[in-house]
Amino acid sequence: MPSDITSVAVFGAGSWGTTFAKVLADAAESHGIERSIRVWGRNPETIADINRHRNGRYLGEIELPGAITATTDPAVALAGAQLVVFAVPAQSLREQLERWRGLIPRDAAVVSLMKGLEVGTDLRMSEVIAEVTGVPPERIAVLSGPNLAMEIARREPTASVIACADEALAQQIARASTAPYFRPYTSTDVVGAEIGGIVKNVIALCVGICDGKGMGDNTKASVITRGLAETTRLAVALGADPQTLAGLAGLGDLVATCASKLSRNHTAGTLLGQGLSVEEVGARMTQIAEGIKSAPAVRDLARRVGVDMPITEAVVGVLAGRIGIDQLQTALLARELKSEGE
Amino acid sequence: MPSDITSVAVFGAGSWGTTFAKVLADAAESHGIERSIRVWGRNPETIADINRHRNGRYLGEIELPGAITATTDPAVALAGAQLVVFAVPAQSLREQLERWRGLIPRDAAVVSLMKGLEVGTDLRMSEVIAEVTGVPPERIAVLSGPNLAMEIARREPTASVIACADEALAQQIARASTAPYFRPYTSTDVVGAEIGGIVKNVIALCVGICDGKGMGDNTKASVITRGLAETTRLAVALGADPQTLAGLAGLGDLVATCASKLSRNHTAGTLLGQGLSVEEVGARMTQIAEGIKSAPAVRDLARRVGVDMPITEAVVGVLAGRIGIDQLQTALLARELKSEGE
Repeated sequence: MPSDITSVAVFGAGSWGTTFAKVLADAAESHGIERSIRVWGRNPETIADINRHRNGRYLGEIELPGAITATTDPAVALAGAQLVVFAVPAQSLREQLERWRGLIPRDAAVVSLMKGLEVGTDLRMSEVIAEVTGVPPERIAVLSGPNLAMEIARREPTASVIACADEALAQQIARASTAPYFRPYTSTDVVGAEIGGIVKNVIALCVGICDGKGMGDNTKASVITRGLAETTRLAVALGADPQTLAGLAGLGDLVATCASKLSRNHTAGTLLGQGLSVEEVGARMTQIAEGIKSAPAVRDLARRVGVDMPITEAVVGVLAGRIGIDQLQTALLARELKSEGE
Repeated sequence: MPSDITSVAVFGAGSWGTTFAKVLADAAESHGIERSIRVWGRNPETIADINRHRNGRYLGEIELPGAITATTDPAVALAGAQLVVFAVPAQSLREQLERWRGLIPRDAAVVSLMKGLEVGTDLRMSEVIAEVTGVPPERIAVLSGPNLAMEIARREPTASVIACADEALAQQIARASTAPYFRPYTSTDVVGAEIGGIVKNVIALCVGICDGKGMGDNTKASVITRGLAETTRLAVALGADPQTLAGLAGLGDLVATCASKLSRNHTAGTLLGQGLSVEEVGARMTQIAEGIKSAPAVRDLARRVGVDMPITEAVVGVLAGRIGIDQLQTALLARELKSEGE
């Protein structure tokens, strides 16, 4: 890949895909580089809107840079792309990749913005990409961190992590996406970055439920603390560095999501806590709360590798209707007196 | 000490001292134990109020159990006490202890609820207690965690950590303070628990400043993440276990404080972020924001042990008037692109 990335395809015209396209455009402009960014999406109205420099459905009145164009044709998006970014709903990735894989330019690098575990296989998104496209893992990076899309779209200062087994590629993608308001750090711990982002959605559902029930900040802080501890246990069992989970892609992402009214998973949890059913929550929301889909897969993966995840188990129980919202509190707090680390 | 703690003195009639007295009373009642809890305070009106089962100034309309009485006489509070709890402003502790030390019953155990570093000596509160009273360190415990007093006073579910070098004593105090809504875990890492609580106040000031300036959740989550990282570096340099900082007394306390509108340090930071001077902030608040006092001591301690604490340095600069609020943002975000752990 040349040192300057001038051609990018972004798959997914939702809030995060569109926002990261904007980051890549603003980064190029601030570095004085010409860069073409082509967003692929399924919805012709959204595509037409992006071509008029807006994505009203997901980003309101925010203006998109002229370097961004949009198309419903994957071949147009992928032609000549040096970097291919995926930001589609996690559970739809495999099916869509099967249609796109023949079009991905040889030697293109891939970035995953997705935070989910594939139901049925328990695979992380980077693993699904490698399996379906044949792109070698060292050409696949993941981006994660405290990255509420709407705040980034508004140019609020944000830090992030780009993780890739090939550190030089991580650095290259970091340089290409450094905008005045967006600062990516690099890491080689792909597993840690992905697991942090996946389990965060499940913990955010639980914190949302606490909010919906009107519980206080002491309780929510305990759920966040113990939630990060169980996330770290799972990540380490899968080979991650525990420091990654203590960093922006673990703690940072979790805290931003649990604090924000902009988070879909937090919002979905709040509605559950207010007494709505999973079906009613789904009907109320424009975008999928990925934690609802991924939670059972996280639970299965944890059981398979022998890691205890009591908060995830409790959330899965609530989603399946086995545990009532009122019993959740008991499930979270009923523990024998013991040393904190046990 | 007998296995049941039946006589307790609590020094400090502010929100946290009074609330922990209530926890000890509710715990005894739930265990079917008779326990006398005597709160010492300086203000005769507050003392009279507590003797009427209220602390209107700090806890509003919350009713206090009949097991709690209050006095302005330290000898009355301390007579027969098996457990002595200190919850006075950190910077006044030494001077007050010098008046009380002759009255502390031999063999009493001590619990510190205080979160501050003594200005001038850089000593932690448990170290000040040991130095002034001669109580051996293994008889001194510290209580820390995501413990916003008002939420506990309202019986909202809360977890906490009791740390003591003598694990059996930590367990005894934990049993004695386990109420239906208050669940203490135990630890032997006194240094980690205290440093977590001390530096938290400094980081909360910084997060408050970000709030006061209207910055978003991405930025605040980055400050929390990097703030906990520098807290952990300092604690480990002083001999703490990094796991303590990842637990309730580190991450948990930090997240609760930074999320809450009830936190004095968070509130003080917000006022600073809105452009008030340190003097104006002091004039607006009923209780001291300990972080304002402790921040320079934390900075000094960090320099002495050779630990880099950029957020603490920036907060000290703002408090001293050397860094403007607008420059803080630049100080926090201006870093070269690099690997996250560096």
